Amino acid sequence: MKLDVLFSPVQADELFFTGKTTVVIDVLRASSTIITALANGAKEVVPVGTIEFAVKVSGGIFGGQTLLGGERNAKKIEGFALGNSPFEYTKEIVNGKSIVFYSTNGSRAIVKAKYSANLYICSFNNLKAVAKQLKKLGEDVIILCSGSNNFFSLEDSVCAGMLVTELLNGNKKMELADSSNAASALFKSFGKNILKMLTESDHGQLLINNGFRDDLKACADLNSTEVIPVYSGNALKVLK
Amino acid sequence: MKLDVLFSPVQADELFFTGKTTVVIDVLRASSTIITALANGAKEVVPVGTIEFAVKVSGGIFGGQTLLGGERNAKKIEGFALGNSPFEYTKEIVNGKSIVFYSTNGSRAIVKAKYSANLYICSFNNLKAVAKQLKKLGEDVIILCSGSNNFFSLEDSVCAGMLVTELLNGNKKMELADSSNAASALFKSFGKNILKMLTESDHGQLLINNGFRDDLKACADLNSTEVIPVYSGNALKVLK
Repeated sequence: MKLDVLFSPVQADELFFTGKTTVVIDVLRASSTIITALANGAKEVVPVGTIEFAVKVSGGIFGGQTLLGGERNAKKIEGFALGNSPFEYTKEIVNGKSIVFYSTNGSRAIVKAKYSANLYICSFNNLKAVAKQLKKLGEDVIILCSGSNNFFSLEDSVCAGMLVTELLNGNKKMELADSSNAASALFKSFGKNILKMLTESDHGQLLINNGFRDDLKACADLNSTEVIPVYSGNALKVLK
Repeated sequence: MKLDVLFSPVQADELFFTGKTTVVIDVLRASSTIITALANGAKEVVPVGTIEFAVKVSGGIFGGQTLLGGERNAKKIEGFALGNSPFEYTKEIVNGKSIVFYSTNGSRAIVKAKYSANLYICSFNNLKAVAKQLKKLGEDVIILCSGSNNFFSLEDSVCAGMLVTELLNGNKKMELADSSNAASALFKSFGKNILKMLTESDHGQLLINNGFRDDLKACADLNSTEVIPVYSGNALKVLK
């Protein structure tokens, strides 16, 4: 079982993911928000690669049971019902709904990895559950950090490193690449206080400056759920 | 003075570098080899982005004083006089010569960053000298890791982290991004024994399997020279 980490989606093209087992991480905030939405009863989350496609899809096949959600550069998009804060995705609002979701980095990373044989979404919220599922599968894993506009994000990389560390735990057959070895070291360096790491990260600072300090707490809430979003038929649903 | 690290050249396009101060790192082996060549008296090293262009350039404007050097996937290229091992670039061979140089990752990273206002080449061999020059300049710095076919390389990232650490040393005005913060942590984790780190890295293993174990020792030789290759007029020369 070999573990690789991509620190940015730009490092690989769509076909790279064909047939692979991929875990997409966007701690601040897409993966945390998607997990929250599904944990709160959303029927599915449909990640899209462009805002135009989000509008098109939501007006079409999904009819009245659809909500548009997401952000561009940490801000809510005009005409969208929901932004990208986990707090907006409450049971009252999302229960039973299809959510068409666009975000600057996360949704586009998911769409890029769509040809994966197994495609899961991970954040600190469901990390242990994802690790358990990956161990059960026993396949090589690509951990795809969504990053920030092609650049490196500390929070995604530390989360990737925590997942690597969790997978290594008691498993001597795990094979690391340079990238997973580095991610694991980053978790050791920055993972002792996740909220502090989020607060000091570039994107954490941007969110705090935009009034989303509480979101960081929600995104740092380790193993708060066992919900694993899995991509199937163009949508993310709860893995059964 | 802000420090950013790109862990792969694919994270930015050519125009991103316009007017910036950029340091290109390809520890195994392009940057180590280029430094060695210039330290041993080569007139200049002309980095090129394709093998075809290397052949074209060497046959043309440079006349008889030209050597073709480099590698593709760690192997010497047919028709090239030199490979990508520092040991090939001896005083006897390179003195006074122009070397047209292609390598899978390093030369292409240099060419990508060609619009930089200041473009330097760094490896463990000249790290302290490069740090001194950057401190003198006082500009924001982009540290560009050449990586491996768009993927992450441990050795380049640890070298970047050592450069960050050297620049931070006694300078409280230094501003770190997520990427430079992470690189610095990677240096703390892996930098205590550079040769060991190189030996255990993915590319180090590839080189050992291809008979280049001694090259790792040469590339781990910390601050063995003060030569800084600087890009000017399409060629790398010794910074005066």
